[in-house]
Amino acid sequence: MADSDLVVPEGWDPGRGKAAALNKRYNFERYGQTRDFLDRVAELSESDGYHPNISFGTTYVNITIDARDGERLGEADVAFALEIDRLYVDKG
Amino acid sequence: MADSDLVVPEGWDPGRGKAAALNKRYNFERYGQTRDFLDRVAELSESDGYHPNISFGTTYVNITIDARDGERLGEADVAFALEIDRLYVDKG
Repeated sequence: MADSDLVVPEGWDPGRGKAAALNKRYNFERYGQTRDFLDRVAELSESDGYHPNISFGTTYVNITIDARDGERLGEADVAFALEIDRLYVDKG
Repeated sequence: MADSDLVVPEGWDPGRGKAAALNKRYNFERYGQTRDFLDRVAELSESDGYHPNISFGTTYVNITIDARDGERLGEADVAFALEIDRLYVDKG
């Protein structure tokens, strides 16, 4: 679940059922871009002290942001999602 | 499927059904080890020119090696799996 007034950022799927999580898939043209994005998300995770679940292949990255409190998605989860979106936009 | 005489390395799950792939989960005590392992697998992938599908969180990495020829697992897929095992053993 998410707080009822929580705004889910564009392109993020809040998922269904009990497991409160934000999911999004990012696509890339070549592995070099995928690699850069993963490195930047890793830096963001380190500085934020929060590690999302990530799956990736040569030209895609799926990110799953679980609710930090283990129950309801909150502002911090949405803020983290928006920061990841910025990393993707900045990939040039 | 896999070549019938193909030896699947220890701990790797060859999966079932049509999708020929080797799957394995690696666990770690802390994120630093997970990060080192991911970086080493990335280097191996670059040098080998082959990128497995990977999912990871703070202290786990799942690796899926799809059959390079898109159909049957072969020696190169098994060799790649064994090289990844060595990276895990060497993590100290």
